[in-house]
Amino acid sequence: MIDRLLDKIDQSAAPIVVGLDPVYGMIPERIRRACTETHGNTLRAAAAMLTAFNREIIDSVCDLVPAVKPQNAMYEQFGPEGVRAYAETAAYAAEKGLIVIGDVKRGDIASTAAAYAAHIGGVELAGERFDPWREDAVTLNPYMGSDGITPFLDCCRAHDKGVFILVRTSNPSSSELQEMRLAESGLALYEHVADLVSGWGADLMGRRGYSRVGAVVGATCAEQGRALRKRMPHSFFLVPGYGAQGASGQDLKGFFDKDGRGCIVNSSRGIIAAWQKDARFGEADLGAAAREAVLAMRADLREVLGG
Amino acid sequence: MIDRLLDKIDQSAAPIVVGLDPVYGMIPERIRRACTETHGNTLRAAAAMLTAFNREIIDSVCDLVPAVKPQNAMYEQFGPEGVRAYAETAAYAAEKGLIVIGDVKRGDIASTAAAYAAHIGGVELAGERFDPWREDAVTLNPYMGSDGITPFLDCCRAHDKGVFILVRTSNPSSSELQEMRLAESGLALYEHVADLVSGWGADLMGRRGYSRVGAVVGATCAEQGRALRKRMPHSFFLVPGYGAQGASGQDLKGFFDKDGRGCIVNSSRGIIAAWQKDARFGEADLGAAAREAVLAMRADLREVLGG
Repeated sequence: MIDRLLDKIDQSAAPIVVGLDPVYGMIPERIRRACTETHGNTLRAAAAMLTAFNREIIDSVCDLVPAVKPQNAMYEQFGPEGVRAYAETAAYAAEKGLIVIGDVKRGDIASTAAAYAAHIGGVELAGERFDPWREDAVTLNPYMGSDGITPFLDCCRAHDKGVFILVRTSNPSSSELQEMRLAESGLALYEHVADLVSGWGADLMGRRGYSRVGAVVGATCAEQGRALRKRMPHSFFLVPGYGAQGASGQDLKGFFDKDGRGCIVNSSRGIIAAWQKDARFGEADLGAAAREAVLAMRADLREVLGG
Repeated sequence: MIDRLLDKIDQSAAPIVVGLDPVYGMIPERIRRACTETHGNTLRAAAAMLTAFNREIIDSVCDLVPAVKPQNAMYEQFGPEGVRAYAETAAYAAEKGLIVIGDVKRGDIASTAAAYAAHIGGVELAGERFDPWREDAVTLNPYMGSDGITPFLDCCRAHDKGVFILVRTSNPSSSELQEMRLAESGLALYEHVADLVSGWGADLMGRRGYSRVGAVVGATCAEQGRALRKRMPHSFFLVPGYGAQGASGQDLKGFFDKDGRGCIVNSSRGIIAAWQKDARFGEADLGAAAREAVLAMRADLREVLGG
């Protein structure tokens, strides 16, 4: 998975992952109306809206970017129907050749972690294997330590999948835990986690210098991103926080290695809600506006990377 | 929710939550066969097994215990069909008068956390409110700080719901992060988190001395449980790790306050797989064996609490 991601980034010259985090207000009225006409004012209608919205986005950007990242919460809020839309979105993106990074941030232990690992490992029933989620990688939370991570590593190994573990998140209050200084090592907690992540990924290396075990490092922490790039040279970074959350390409230079690799930048609202942010676009232009936003983001990142 | 939980514990004299974490091997052959005959060897069949299994457990223990705790991972591993079984289980337990603690351990930020908060707050569509999950409380992960918690606190306030935030988990590797000593305060990380949890819960107090914001504290850390009980006197504890994970009633004495309150102890396998652990029982005795295990656990805890 990690080599395929690196190859696709090289081919597209776009280290961009499109965050599929639709909220109700972003969904064009024509899609809302069609789904409500079919399903009434129900959770099924909401789920159908998400699927329809995502298909237009995926169709319009799938030749430009290597990956999409559906944010599980935006689907789960609508209950099991919403969760089905999440799985349908992942399956549709996979069929279009995109790498699917499931932003689920799961974290649990032992047999429970093994069950969650079905996200990337599938599940066996009477000798038959099922893969209901169609994700190539998922995000994970490290608070419970390696017991929560190991079952996923086994799946990375067995099925060539990937994980991205939260190291330094892009939200203001992440400092409440992540920046706490540790007594013995003098490290900040997130640096300690970075070292754990490096260790977890050490024997899951791909052919191109990066491990199947990556790290989530928020774009809003530019200096920390630069330092973490040096601290964990074999950990691929998934970087949220570009665009709507405040970071620009210039802030991200240090997140990439000397060859301009090692990092994929997420943008969600900046791409999927682009049709609402420019008077040139109407609600028919959901896909066209997303495409233009991807091209602008690619140009912004290329300028920084000198590509 | 927290007062109702305390009342129900007093009425039942059983500070016990039944963990609904069925794994395939625990499901009686008669249930497996019936579901496979109806649905074939499919994920829908697996989901139907979980629902049927849980209904028997719930029917057999709902007059003895105040609460159940379905473990989300055990359902999610079967994809959207499994997730539907999770929601059906929660709804069935709620109809039987049980408090439902959704063990989801979610953790995310801002608008994403607000979306996950639908677990306890429901979701609005065109002015109509839907409650697809039917949970009274959920477990949460604190790694991202208060940004990830605040939206849930709003739901606790608006809808009288609860949360249990991971403080000290019962697994061996929890020490990799949670026991790290902090430089400035000299606290272990989990103590620092305990203080955060106390703060988050300070203005969400119920009438009986406990907050709607509780803590997950593993039963396998007896001394730490005792110290945490003193450190966070208004935080109700959800305690995993009893029975199959190694802790006995005697280990748990310090988790309760001086009145024998402030704590609910989870047992999963010890109750729901009891039918497999005693030659007196056959697969028809799923419910009867669970009931007997609950009564034994109640007696064990009563001995410690002197009730």
